[in-house]
Amino acid sequence: MAGFAAPLEELIDEFARLPSIGRKSAQRLAFHILSLSNAEAEKFITSVKKARESIHRCSVCCNLTDGEICSICSDPSRDKSTICVVEGPKDVNAIEKTHEYNGLYHVLNGAISPLNDIGIEDICAKELILRLEDDSVKEIIMATNTTVEGEATAMYLSRIIKPIGVKVSRLAYGVPAGADLEFADEVTLVKAIEGRNFY
Amino acid sequence: MAGFAAPLEELIDEFARLPSIGRKSAQRLAFHILSLSNAEAEKFITSVKKARESIHRCSVCCNLTDGEICSICSDPSRDKSTICVVEGPKDVNAIEKTHEYNGLYHVLNGAISPLNDIGIEDICAKELILRLEDDSVKEIIMATNTTVEGEATAMYLSRIIKPIGVKVSRLAYGVPAGADLEFADEVTLVKAIEGRNFY
Repeated sequence: MAGFAAPLEELIDEFARLPSIGRKSAQRLAFHILSLSNAEAEKFITSVKKARESIHRCSVCCNLTDGEICSICSDPSRDKSTICVVEGPKDVNAIEKTHEYNGLYHVLNGAISPLNDIGIEDICAKELILRLEDDSVKEIIMATNTTVEGEATAMYLSRIIKPIGVKVSRLAYGVPAGADLEFADEVTLVKAIEGRNFY
Repeated sequence: MAGFAAPLEELIDEFARLPSIGRKSAQRLAFHILSLSNAEAEKFITSVKKARESIHRCSVCCNLTDGEICSICSDPSRDKSTICVVEGPKDVNAIEKTHEYNGLYHVLNGAISPLNDIGIEDICAKELILRLEDDSVKEIIMATNTTVEGEATAMYLSRIIKPIGVKVSRLAYGVPAGADLEFADEVTLVKAIEGRNFY
């Protein structure tokens, strides 16, 4: 016998197909699934099904939501004059955790990447431009990643948006809080010096 | 909004409950599940259900199987005079991969651990003793882990089995193949010296 019984091998294969799950982890997960009570297993399966059925993109900001419009876009207390543009739903969460930003978001669901054949039409850029037809939007904050792709996307979008007459800004570069200067890379340090603040 | 839409948060929670999956990994897995095609998602759910429905313990060796008797126990070419006793199904796989052992197995599905309140009646030891009633069994190889629990289990079982008149052996201790002596711990080195082989 090479390997486990067929249905168990299939389950291990399924787990191994998930991102960042190797063969050994997949085995551990499959054995865990077998050890669950029926109620727990049912709950696991239901949550997979339910998330897939109910989660889709917000028709305004393209973030993931289970309603027609997401909870941020439909919140009347949010400042509708500012839109923070991010690459993915996780970025929205990261900024929300600061409790400092009260504007709206726009989720691109990707970034331009010619190497991976991802162009402007493959991300939710058109939806962003459409939102600018509403005169209430005064500023777009580009909060894409500081990677080559994120920078290119921010630059590209800013060139489209500026002529419309809306202010476009970019997140500040610099040394992260709590970091040892010793371990900061050269590019970050140069940006931190360039963007230095005066007392 | 703190966090993602409710059904997505639930799916993340379910993944985070799996062993060795942290919050960040659970997020990555949940997003991956959302990105699957319907057919892929269906296959994932089916494999979970199928594995849980069809996998149970072999009535002879207590290994996991989808049949009444596992493929090793029902293989007529295996040597029925030797039973290799292991803690779990993964150990069977590890030994099978050597292609050197042709006997049968017995899977204890655990090891004695007084600290965790696991006694001899909580592991598949009774089933092993029952198999010894068949006179064809000549030797039991204890291949439990070389942990405190594995050692205690091997010792305990050997004391029960020896009086029945069946030979009991234990896997050889020593330095693993391809290892730097420098990094071997003291206990392993002492065992390797004690068990040294002469040319």
